[in-house]
Amino acid sequence: MVNPFFKNSGPYKFSEIQNELNLKIDEINKDLNITDIKDLQNSKSEEITFFHSKKYKIAANNTKASFCITTENLKDQLPQSCIPIIVENVLVSTSIITAKFYPDTINDDFDNTVSDINKTEFNNKVKFGKNVLIGKNVLIGSNCLIGHNSIIEKNVSVGDNCTIGSNTIVRNCLIKNNVKILDNCVIGKHGFGFFPNQNKNLRYPHMGVVIIEDNCEIGCGSTIDRGSMSNTTIGKNTFLDNQIHIAHNVRIGENSIIAGQVGIAGSSIIGNNVKIGGQAGISGHLKIGNNVEIAGGSGVIKDIPDNTKVMGYPAKNIRQFLRENK
Amino acid sequence: MVNPFFKNSGPYKFSEIQNELNLKIDEINKDLNITDIKDLQNSKSEEITFFHSKKYKIAANNTKASFCITTENLKDQLPQSCIPIIVENVLVSTSIITAKFYPDTINDDFDNTVSDINKTEFNNKVKFGKNVLIGKNVLIGSNCLIGHNSIIEKNVSVGDNCTIGSNTIVRNCLIKNNVKILDNCVIGKHGFGFFPNQNKNLRYPHMGVVIIEDNCEIGCGSTIDRGSMSNTTIGKNTFLDNQIHIAHNVRIGENSIIAGQVGIAGSSIIGNNVKIGGQAGISGHLKIGNNVEIAGGSGVIKDIPDNTKVMGYPAKNIRQFLRENK
Amino acid sequence: MVNPFFKNSGPYKFSEIQNELNLKIDEINKDLNITDIKDLQNSKSEEITFFHSKKYKIAANNTKASFCITTENLKDQLPQSCIPIIVENVLVSTSIITAKFYPDTINDDFDNTVSDINKTEFNNKVKFGKNVLIGKNVLIGSNCLIGHNSIIEKNVSVGDNCTIGSNTIVRNCLIKNNVKILDNCVIGKHGFGFFPNQNKNLRYPHMGVVIIEDNCEIGCGSTIDRGSMSNTTIGKNTFLDNQIHIAHNVRIGENSIIAGQVGIAGSSIIGNNVKIGGQAGISGHLKIGNNVEIAGGSGVIKDIPDNTKVMGYPAKNIRQFLRENK
Repeated sequence: MVNPFFKNSGPYKFSEIQNELNLKIDEINKDLNITDIKDLQNSKSEEITFFHSKKYKIAANNTKASFCITTENLKDQLPQSCIPIIVENVLVSTSIITAKFYPDTINDDFDNTVSDINKTEFNNKVKFGKNVLIGKNVLIGSNCLIGHNSIIEKNVSVGDNCTIGSNTIVRNCLIKNNVKILDNCVIGKHGFGFFPNQNKNLRYPHMGVVIIEDNCEIGCGSTIDRGSMSNTTIGKNTFLDNQIHIAHNVRIGENSIIAGQVGIAGSSIIGNNVKIGGQAGISGHLKIGNNVEIAGGSGVIKDIPDNTKVMGYPAKNIRQFLRENK
Repeated sequence: MVNPFFKNSGPYKFSEIQNELNLKIDEINKDLNITDIKDLQNSKSEEITFFHSKKYKIAANNTKASFCITTENLKDQLPQSCIPIIVENVLVSTSIITAKFYPDTINDDFDNTVSDINKTEFNNKVKFGKNVLIGKNVLIGSNCLIGHNSIIEKNVSVGDNCTIGSNTIVRNCLIKNNVKILDNCVIGKHGFGFFPNQNKNLRYPHMGVVIIEDNCEIGCGSTIDRGSMSNTTIGKNTFLDNQIHIAHNVRIGENSIIAGQVGIAGSSIIGNNVKIGGQAGISGHLKIGNNVEIAGGSGVIKDIPDNTKVMGYPAKNIRQFLRENK
Repeated sequence: MVNPFFKNSGPYKFSEIQNELNLKIDEINKDLNITDIKDLQNSKSEEITFFHSKKYKIAANNTKASFCITTENLKDQLPQSCIPIIVENVLVSTSIITAKFYPDTINDDFDNTVSDINKTEFNNKVKFGKNVLIGKNVLIGSNCLIGHNSIIEKNVSVGDNCTIGSNTIVRNCLIKNNVKILDNCVIGKHGFGFFPNQNKNLRYPHMGVVIIEDNCEIGCGSTIDRGSMSNTTIGKNTFLDNQIHIAHNVRIGENSIIAGQVGIAGSSIIGNNVKIGGQAGISGHLKIGNNVEIAGGSGVIKDIPDNTKVMGYPAKNIRQFLRENK
């Protein structure tokens, strides 16, 4: 799993898993132990996995998991060593079981492990403002600054020569060296991910972290959400202006420049040396190549190849856009 | 009046009302008492009301108010029991008098009634972070969490099982059950409402509250302004992503999903099961039907009927938009 | 220089300047004193200036500076009294030397001069919330309010009758009278200005301040960056709604109204009585005339003359836009 921080609250007996999913299965021994949940490739004996699409047939054929959440149609792809657990909606059920093993991936309740930094080991090591709070399992390198009222919640690693502004909250985050995060940011909360459900949506787990590579700068009032099953990554020397929103699972390359109020929707991948003008928006699950320039205010709804300049909504070749919009 | 919280600082004598409006009226007894200001239908004897448009002629004919702020042209529609007070601009004068009766509706000065939560009755009832402040006249249900540095100002009611993040400010707000408000939000401040006026704009009162129904989630860095004469409402199980702005008097239905950086201008009404993509904007005073889908980045400037998918700026039928913008 | 606050950490010897720029110049006396850095017109004897474009030829001919950062091609325009220092990129080198004289203009590290307001001279003069911090070199007029958790960093001047909300940070700012800055704002941080540079961008100095004239209001969650070589200015009685971003060097006139989530890019100049609808964006270095109306969601990419209404992206005459987009 991508996040080294979240604690597995298992093992659970099969009966507990069954109850959680409201299933009635008599032919499986209720006392069998289930130790963890992983994807098809990484799961091992005594663990549970999930299989929801034919796309993953080969991985399913070879899984080492002892249990697999799947459908009637797909179950025959599993090896004999893997007991299928038949459900209506594999992703919803997987989400429920992941939440059982990793409850901290669902809720971003405030961190009640924090202490006043004056009472921590960082007292002498870090230069800090008033009212700074530090959670458990936090690492901070040398020569770092943390501004007033900021909160480094549990499960954060900060490299050397980093500056964190005032009123900023960081959690579930790997911050490399020479990174600046300015004031009023929220970095590392769970993304906007849930299964819509009449009367009560079902949030799915966010196991990922936010990784911010060397020499990055994150402007005031920005939010960067951590990934669900992968990480959210900001590449080396990429600068973000104020009030930017980076959704879960987004990966931004190196040396990119992103102006104020830009929003990048979930799971999009942005290349190196990309320039994005103010207020531009990028839809989810897109691939933006290297050396791309996106004019301010554009709305990008399809992949953009390397070395391209685009503008407009939907964003198209900038020369074409300007010719058509004189 | 819609807000149960604001205190009437009256009664005032007629002379005080007259002075406030810079009027010279000799034919009215300066010692008459005026106890409150309400609309034409709800006002009673000894109270003052306002009448600025022929649209409200029937209500004016039947008002029980003893005084009415109105114009020379409209005054004859009032019953004999109601003394007309003739002004140049009814809404401006009404705003001034409302502010006199309800001064707290004009200014959102910081709440100086707050105490450290440790010194309040919520000490044992609520799970809370460091530096949490609670104002007077606050109710909080069972099993709630409030994060670090958050401020629940006076006049807030929070139901059961609610989570309020860190660095969040809430005022003039009715929060039902199972609601989550994430970090760095400002919920319940007055809206962006004023009469433009050379050199010194005149703010008008915001008597409304923000109502957030059961099972809602409000993302980080969002702002939801309270209503002026009505309330701002977020319906059951509606989820808002980060950095969203909901202006005064907006009403959003149930089970809606609103992605990051969306803005909804004042007094618009959004239906149930509506999906709004990131960075979309909705102009003021519009009606968006049920089951509507608005693509990310769209700008909606007219009403949208039920069961419609729209895209573009101005937003139109999504198929038409995509056909025209290949 | 525009900012009265930043301290000159000079004088430096020529040898120190040379080292900073990685230059090898043998024909200049290494012990010569350099006291300050200014532009061509304002610099005096013993000071250093810079000259990067023929546009400034006349000012170069007449400069009183003793040293000038320039190029081989331009150096002959300087008077004999001025020693040219030949570099590859004048602006980058100027930035490096400005940072040497004024290190505080590069980094916005948290202000470690702040004290709890209770321990300052403002204890009895200002009405304030909990956990308010005040830096050195702060002036606050009479009848002001400062909300909870707010930080007035060093080098701020606040006039009379001003209100600053909660969780707001202000630095390098001249705030006149009757100004309201609401909650969760960051006013006066450095702008998004740097020379892009593979692996490590080079930030350039922000010597300017933010000036907010009388009777302005700044909405929640807004960011206003200070200028680089000039100031960022908000004219009298201009109101900004929530979540607005104003970049460095922007100048907004009087009596303007700017709705939620608007962004104005660097160095643009906005006239008086301008109305800008929600989510509109204005590119950098533009001139928007007086009495202009920009519809919500528009993207302005060229100058707009006085008394014009525009809409769309790119913004054009509103009637034309609406005719073309039925």
